Amino acid sequence: MAYIQIINGPNLNLLGRRRPDIYGQSTLDDINDELRGRFAATELRFAQSNSEGTIIEAIHAAGFDSECLGIVLNAGAYTHYSYAIADAIEAVDVPVVEVHISNIHAREDFRNRSVIAPVCRGSIAGFGKYSYFLAIEAILHA
Amino acid sequence: MAYIQIINGPNLNLLGRRRPDIYGQSTLDDINDELRGRFAATELRFAQSNSEGTIIEAIHAAGFDSECLGIVLNAGAYTHYSYAIADAIEAVDVPVVEVHISNIHAREDFRNRSVIAPVCRGSIAGFGKYSYFLAIEAILHA
Amino acid sequence: MAYIQIINGPNLNLLGRRRPDIYGQSTLDDINDELRGRFAATELRFAQSNSEGTIIEAIHAAGFDSECLGIVLNAGAYTHYSYAIADAIEAVDVPVVEVHISNIHAREDFRNRSVIAPVCRGSIAGFGKYSYFLAIEAILHA
Amino acid sequence: MAYIQIINGPNLNLLGRRRPDIYGQSTLDDINDELRGRFAATELRFAQSNSEGTIIEAIHAAGFDSECLGIVLNAGAYTHYSYAIADAIEAVDVPVVEVHISNIHAREDFRNRSVIAPVCRGSIAGFGKYSYFLAIEAILHA
Amino acid sequence: MAYIQIINGPNLNLLGRRRPDIYGQSTLDDINDELRGRFAATELRFAQSNSEGTIIEAIHAAGFDSECLGIVLNAGAYTHYSYAIADAIEAVDVPVVEVHISNIHAREDFRNRSVIAPVCRGSIAGFGKYSYFLAIEAILHA
Amino acid sequence: MAYIQIINGPNLNLLGRRRPDIYGQSTLDDINDELRGRFAATELRFAQSNSEGTIIEAIHAAGFDSECLGIVLNAGAYTHYSYAIADAIEAVDVPVVEVHISNIHAREDFRNRSVIAPVCRGSIAGFGKYSYFLAIEAILHA
Amino acid sequence: MAYIQIINGPNLNLLGRRRPDIYGQSTLDDINDELRGRFAATELRFAQSNSEGTIIEAIHAAGFDSECLGIVLNAGAYTHYSYAIADAIEAVDVPVVEVHISNIHAREDFRNRSVIAPVCRGSIAGFGKYSYFLAIEAILHA
Amino acid sequence: MAYIQIINGPNLNLLGRRRPDIYGQSTLDDINDELRGRFAATELRFAQSNSEGTIIEAIHAAGFDSECLGIVLNAGAYTHYSYAIADAIEAVDVPVVEVHISNIHAREDFRNRSVIAPVCRGSIAGFGKYSYFLAIEAILHA
Amino acid sequence: MAYIQIINGPNLNLLGRRRPDIYGQSTLDDINDELRGRFAATELRFAQSNSEGTIIEAIHAAGFDSECLGIVLNAGAYTHYSYAIADAIEAVDVPVVEVHISNIHAREDFRNRSVIAPVCRGSIAGFGKYSYFLAIEAILHA
Amino acid sequence: MAYIQIINGPNLNLLGRRRPDIYGQSTLDDINDELRGRFAATELRFAQSNSEGTIIEAIHAAGFDSECLGIVLNAGAYTHYSYAIADAIEAVDVPVVEVHISNIHAREDFRNRSVIAPVCRGSIAGFGKYSYFLAIEAILHA
Amino acid sequence: MAYIQIINGPNLNLLGRRRPDIYGQSTLDDINDELRGRFAATELRFAQSNSEGTIIEAIHAAGFDSECLGIVLNAGAYTHYSYAIADAIEAVDVPVVEVHISNIHAREDFRNRSVIAPVCRGSIAGFGKYSYFLAIEAILHA
Amino acid sequence: MAYIQIINGPNLNLLGRRRPDIYGQSTLDDINDELRGRFAATELRFAQSNSEGTIIEAIHAAGFDSECLGIVLNAGAYTHYSYAIADAIEAVDVPVVEVHISNIHAREDFRNRSVIAPVCRGSIAGFGKYSYFLAIEAILHA
Repeated sequence: MAYIQIINGPNLNLLGRRRPDIYGQSTLDDINDELRGRFAATELRFAQSNSEGTIIEAIHAAGFDSECLGIVLNAGAYTHYSYAIADAIEAVDVPVVEVHISNIHAREDFRNRSVIAPVCRGSIAGFGKYSYFLAIEAILHA
Repeated sequence: MAYIQIINGPNLNLLGRRRPDIYGQSTLDDINDELRGRFAATELRFAQSNSEGTIIEAIHAAGFDSECLGIVLNAGAYTHYSYAIADAIEAVDVPVVEVHISNIHAREDFRNRSVIAPVCRGSIAGFGKYSYFLAIEAILHA
Repeated sequence: MAYIQIINGPNLNLLGRRRPDIYGQSTLDDINDELRGRFAATELRFAQSNSEGTIIEAIHAAGFDSECLGIVLNAGAYTHYSYAIADAIEAVDVPVVEVHISNIHAREDFRNRSVIAPVCRGSIAGFGKYSYFLAIEAILHA
Repeated sequence: MAYIQIINGPNLNLLGRRRPDIYGQSTLDDINDELRGRFAATELRFAQSNSEGTIIEAIHAAGFDSECLGIVLNAGAYTHYSYAIADAIEAVDVPVVEVHISNIHAREDFRNRSVIAPVCRGSIAGFGKYSYFLAIEAILHA
Repeated sequence: MAYIQIINGPNLNLLGRRRPDIYGQSTLDDINDELRGRFAATELRFAQSNSEGTIIEAIHAAGFDSECLGIVLNAGAYTHYSYAIADAIEAVDVPVVEVHISNIHAREDFRNRSVIAPVCRGSIAGFGKYSYFLAIEAILHA
Repeated sequence: MAYIQIINGPNLNLLGRRRPDIYGQSTLDDINDELRGRFAATELRFAQSNSEGTIIEAIHAAGFDSECLGIVLNAGAYTHYSYAIADAIEAVDVPVVEVHISNIHAREDFRNRSVIAPVCRGSIAGFGKYSYFLAIEAILHA
Repeated sequence: MAYIQIINGPNLNLLGRRRPDIYGQSTLDDINDELRGRFAATELRFAQSNSEGTIIEAIHAAGFDSECLGIVLNAGAYTHYSYAIADAIEAVDVPVVEVHISNIHAREDFRNRSVIAPVCRGSIAGFGKYSYFLAIEAILHA
Repeated sequence: MAYIQIINGPNLNLLGRRRPDIYGQSTLDDINDELRGRFAATELRFAQSNSEGTIIEAIHAAGFDSECLGIVLNAGAYTHYSYAIADAIEAVDVPVVEVHISNIHAREDFRNRSVIAPVCRGSIAGFGKYSYFLAIEAILHA
Repeated sequence: MAYIQIINGPNLNLLGRRRPDIYGQSTLDDINDELRGRFAATELRFAQSNSEGTIIEAIHAAGFDSECLGIVLNAGAYTHYSYAIADAIEAVDVPVVEVHISNIHAREDFRNRSVIAPVCRGSIAGFGKYSYFLAIEAILHA
Repeated sequence: MAYIQIINGPNLNLLGRRRPDIYGQSTLDDINDELRGRFAATELRFAQSNSEGTIIEAIHAAGFDSECLGIVLNAGAYTHYSYAIADAIEAVDVPVVEVHISNIHAREDFRNRSVIAPVCRGSIAGFGKYSYFLAIEAILHA
Repeated sequence: MAYIQIINGPNLNLLGRRRPDIYGQSTLDDINDELRGRFAATELRFAQSNSEGTIIEAIHAAGFDSECLGIVLNAGAYTHYSYAIADAIEAVDVPVVEVHISNIHAREDFRNRSVIAPVCRGSIAGFGKYSYFLAIEAILHA
Repeated sequence: MAYIQIINGPNLNLLGRRRPDIYGQSTLDDINDELRGRFAATELRFAQSNSEGTIIEAIHAAGFDSECLGIVLNAGAYTHYSYAIADAIEAVDVPVVEVHISNIHAREDFRNRSVIAPVCRGSIAGFGKYSYFLAIEAILHA
């Protein structure tokens, strides 16, 4: 059965605790529950890891799975330097959508550069937890 | 009555004629019609200009209008150098959402830098004409 | 009869509304009235435009007019990238004085570089609306 | 009937007045007359604008006109930063030839970079008003 | 009971074997034993990992633990590029002190930049194993 | 009694001898006398030093003196690299106005960057000795 | 008994699936079998990991093993930023040879810089799977 | 008798064999014959060398020859780094026109910079073999 | 008799007055008294200067004195550009420890680079006045 | 009869005399003899030149010769700036393998960039004279 | 009576003690005595200072003295950043010759840039104390 | 018999004809004659070439000749990019002194960087033809 894989990267397990002024009050579980509520007709699978290698393997697993419609990826700070994750994205068959909760362009300089953006289908940033909703819609639409 | 202002910048009047491999076959009118069809409950207003000054003034007009819910802005190539448009965005009261039809990060180097992103609410890029749909949803949700 | 031309660039029509913490509470009309009051013996002419092309043409018009004593130019964000305005300044016969309301050196990096400064007679920045007063005095003195 | 469109950008309406040591004594009208005299067999159409948006639209108008053989473009200082004009050039069907009166490589650093050169058919710089003659020949020959 | 968490990053398990000219002859266990001897009144907890993800999780675990007085972190080469570790440091509640055995500023260029320094309480480098002693004192004092 | 402190930095004791094409024929004493003549109602105090340390101390002395209305500082070449002077300016209570006799933006590249500008109240450059007059007016007005 | 350790990094488990135009049709197992066939007289040990930490530990394990003749390392994208792997290579006793299947210098800019090259014995790139053969020969010869 | 010297640099002896998609099908002899045919009234002299020193000497020989009207120089890849050729051009008496068959600005980054352009009379690039025709016309006209 | 020399650089005479949010409320005398209290068994000598030359000479004086155990140096803003002080540090016989009250890596960009760090024994930053305590301990321990 | 062309560039005629710590004790003739001994079944042809132009011509001669299996090129210091040699490599039909005796990545910065690598088949560096053996094997295998 | 002024900058009072491997065994007095011995017919005056301001004033004093034939300046580390000293050199009437004992180009990167070289008559570096002899000869010859 | 080898690089055969404002009126033969006259007791050998390869070979020939006391090298524009000449200098046994007629630091940016300076014994620039005299003296003295 078709599903969408949501992958969250480093420090996103801290949502709700880490800088709520930037990242909001919801925990990752809260967000995942809201997503499940809104997209009841689609199976959503969730993964979170602080490890670059584990994220790469989650992309491999979903990305060559013919039942996976697409991957929503918030790679956290790996966004800014993990060419290894970028290579994984480029390698797989399904579309990968980059999401960010905050507007990464309005923060520190290092957050301005995404090394994964060039190999993603598209990017969505700055809409808080709603960034995930938009990314799922983008995959469902494609 | 509440409305959303969609502003398209330079060369977007050529949609359907300009590099359809990148920008798709739909004309700007086609896209606008589709948007009107999908968001029937919300007034959408459209503007397109190749002139930086006219775009700035369109942002001023909608951005201080208490009936405007938000601005969807595809600033075209001005995205990459128009600090004057960025200042206009920063000045106004309503949220501005940056959209791009193509994945600007997968193209020439100069398209990697958006000088308006830091002052927009959020950014959406790479989903073809569907980028506009997502941006309107983001404003409606906010 | 001799006069001084004051030219204001993009977003300066928003003075009083745009970031009053930085730009102050006075509108552009307020400032112009104050200037007229203070320099009653000199004709002051005012122009404001958000369009690069219109600003260039205003510089041409005053800059080759033998009755014009000088131009006071607040080019707004065009200060930082409009080599076309710089070329216009370099071309004309009358002195052009660059003014800025805020201290552009204490803000974002991109505001640190003025591409028009090298071809202006001099620069005045950071004194709020009083920057215009000083610029007019500088032209009257020259 | 076939024609060639010559488009001149910002400050070129000042030819003859602006730095004659660099740009020569001829006005733009003088040059246009000489060009008409030399290429009597070909219709030449002329446009000049200080506005980026107007230049973009002039490129659109001629660039999709099946009777236009090509565009000769002296984009003035926009040469060095107008990615919006570059996008217009890339979009259109007819060849665009970049010309400069002066040798832009022998002057200020910022004049060394042409953002439009990569999307033009070719570039000609440094031959004074004769640069236009060569550009028209290049289009006629192509 | 209150404790201090010492976290050592990649290749620090090789202390005593890796370039003793730079890093000294003591093994990591030697150093830990000396630290325990010197700070008998304070519980010290030790962790070492070559994995970025594991280090992030160790920071999370101690950093939100109300009994933890602070974290002493020698992030090894991750110091120079792991924005993910920096984000973890910024997120947690307890102070984190950066330590380095060698003077990182006297070595290769890439060791001159610490991406974690801006989010640490302070930094200590160059005193050999004594860097750890000083860092613990700094936390105890704070 | 209220006063304004004028501080001149390195090589400004050579005014009148050093490159009169750029700096003019007046000596520093000439300028100071003219300033005293023009601002007879205000006490002006003058200092000149070629030493960075002495300039720092002159800023300290006036900058914490409740009778000092402001400091006019021409830091000469220290403008371009003395972060120590910048720290002094940032530390003191009174406003500091940066002045330059020549248009520093029209000269060598190194003169384009002022490390003290971000911590000054404002900057005035390019008006010859009249730059000092304008700076004093700016302080009197504030 | 003497052996050579071959270590493959991130995404190399996808060989045969990932961009066969660049990386060829052989899977990693195919290549390993071919290597075993060709170098029957030498024990070859194989490891692959997507995790930076695991690669570091594999280098430690073989690199201090007196029976290991050398390490052949294809660090994948970690090649371009993992100073932690570079430190591991520099620390160990056995020679490490860097290999790449593709010519990394003929691809994206970021692949032009190898942070591990300076601490490897030598580098071999661009010969497809034959790069591994050459690297083993180089170690056997040394 | 007056003549024009055409000098071709490294690898241009391969015209017709080297990347005909970029450089066309004509050999250098073909082009030279066409040039002779078109400019029957002017003596054309041809030289080609792969050696920087020989090119410098060819420039010296023609450049101080009072019968030489000008030099047409396609310096090939030396264009991008040979300051020695640039010095030769600057030294001689006759005008030197830089030509390129391809549009060097539409290719690799390193081809964007011409170190000889600042000392040439003018530059012509992108018109295929017709670039030479235009360059000769430019010299004849001057 | 053995002693430790503490040298404070520019603007540190303002401690307690200058940005107490960053530098704390203690004056330099307060800190020196606290240091004397804590290290009663060791002679501490104190110097402060705003002049680069005087600091260099203080380093010379203590640095070749066989009774001096080491130098604790807070070079203030000279940290970021005084290669002359760096040369003095490199020249002398005793160890020099760099200290900073604030975390210089969490502030303006220019404070991220220490030109003296490479020639110091080690660096301590970010612990407020306690940075001095740690530095003295480091010297006593060495 | 099929052969492989080995081309050595500037200063490689000094092998055995020039920095034997880096380049080894063997002369170029020694190496060539060893290569002939090892690859007795294949004709090897050798060339050495200190001249960029001569190297270009050697590449042309072998590179369009249908009996040449490939070129082994040690371009010496030309590796780092000779775009003319790179153009020659790109132009020819046979594969070119870049070799270096030393590990160029472990030496001066300028040796880190190879302008010829992007157009070679592959690169081998760091194995002393054995680099040539490996390169010949790579060509024989291809 | 005519004389030559020799000015030595920061840390040069340590000659003989500071890094004798680089700077030699002679003290500054030794060198001065040797110079006096060799140039008995010319008055030599010597100054040394660690203070930028004092060096500037020494340049002023000699540089406007009609009996001074020239200045030999070893500005030590100020060479690399003191634009204030450069301004002093540019201002004065007599020729200034830059000298360095060591080859500054063979040492740390920061020593590669001399900000005073562009305004000196010439530069001499790398000949040990003999650099001073050559500089005096250069002035005597001029 | 001992001798000194003087080697002049590209365009120096034009001395007397090329920019006499910078390089003086003397031809290279004039200078060589003057040098022979002044250093009658020492054999001077002269070479000039516009070819990088020939210069390299001239350095090899003299540089390993036990009768050669040293080489005086004016490498002309090769100074700024010929790493091949730098490698030759580094390889040879005799000292090489870099000379320049003009002050290369007071001219175009590209002349500020000498890639040969780090491997020369020392450098002398800016004294006109007298630079050669000083260089010979330096070698005789060494």
